[in-house]
Amino acid sequence: MPKRLVATSGRPPNRKQREARELLLNAATELFASHGVAGTTFVMIAKRAGFTPAMLHYYFKNRDRLLDAVVEERFMRFVSHIWDPVREDAEALVAVPEFLARMFDGIAKMPWVPALWLREIVNEGGLLRARVLPILPWEKAKWLGGAIARGQKSGTLNPDLDPQLSVTSAICLVMLHAATIKPWAKRFDREPPETKALRRHITSLILKGMRL
Amino acid sequence: MPKRLVATSGRPPNRKQREARELLLNAATELFASHGVAGTTFVMIAKRAGFTPAMLHYYFKNRDRLLDAVVEERFMRFVSHIWDPVREDAEALVAVPEFLARMFDGIAKMPWVPALWLREIVNEGGLLRARVLPILPWEKAKWLGGAIARGQKSGTLNPDLDPQLSVTSAICLVMLHAATIKPWAKRFDREPPETKALRRHITSLILKGMRL
Repeated sequence: MPKRLVATSGRPPNRKQREARELLLNAATELFASHGVAGTTFVMIAKRAGFTPAMLHYYFKNRDRLLDAVVEERFMRFVSHIWDPVREDAEALVAVPEFLARMFDGIAKMPWVPALWLREIVNEGGLLRARVLPILPWEKAKWLGGAIARGQKSGTLNPDLDPQLSVTSAICLVMLHAATIKPWAKRFDREPPETKALRRHITSLILKGMRL
Repeated sequence: MPKRLVATSGRPPNRKQREARELLLNAATELFASHGVAGTTFVMIAKRAGFTPAMLHYYFKNRDRLLDAVVEERFMRFVSHIWDPVREDAEALVAVPEFLARMFDGIAKMPWVPALWLREIVNEGGLLRARVLPILPWEKAKWLGGAIARGQKSGTLNPDLDPQLSVTSAICLVMLHAATIKPWAKRFDREPPETKALRRHITSLILKGMRL
């Protein structure tokens, strides 16, 4: 199978090739989240997807191109999902809960996101950080912060919050809880809370914190 | 100077030796926080402290012993500072703000804590994680969670929170904001908020979120 695919190089990819590429990209993304970028080899990725390392090289040429694809075609899909609907004239008490809901939905569909974010993006040693930070929609984050600031000015939201930091607080809470909930539950000799309970906890904390 | 110190090996360390060891340990801790454990060499640590790599080897023998010392004599100093005063019969609306205040005080004294926590402890690839997790005071974290649960049962605290997750939420918010505030402020074209404003933001978010 690898041979046939290599032979078609140059022609538009057929459905089977596109599928193989998607499977390899999924495997790479999941392994980067669970083992870290530095701890993941081409051999591991190919094996997980059920292909040969040669196939992985065929589709992604080298490690840099593979990292580009994981960022652009996987991580940024989550980023678009949570940020695209944010509008400049957003109303905080509508836009913030909707944003939180999209984060939880996005993580349910792409469960590798929080670990990848924690491991390779948010901390300064993260190996995807330099690729991701420049292309995040900072403008949209400012709009959401602006919505909170307007709510404070009009006297309907908690004036002790920093409006822009409130956006960071919401993202950090969702991501960190989602990334750490299993190991931490074990330490507390309990089952990890259900997604529904985690969602209620974070949404309530943020929304009550925002209100007067 | 290294020679004289090597010659005294076996005798109880004198004041100069203790001071040299402390300076080397400070340099190691700060470099681990800013460059990561994997990105920090003995040469870098010795240079930062103004000693030779031989001195570092003299005091800590090898990398494992140095990591042990950073955890036991530096990171756990912060952990003790924030957790030691927590009592089993704590009252949540007193104990939680006191706990947050100790976190902020601790970070003011040990500003390397949040970056080290984010980089080497909380994420699964962290190189101090296996050393730190087993010796954290989980019992005290359960007491603080228990205090919140009692407040919920007596009808004085927000019933939508998961009491144990609330403790994690508080820690994550302080650590992540403190670790990321400078780079993120740059992205938003503003000055990083003052410590006082950050403290007010997080304390208000958590306490309002906890209340009915």
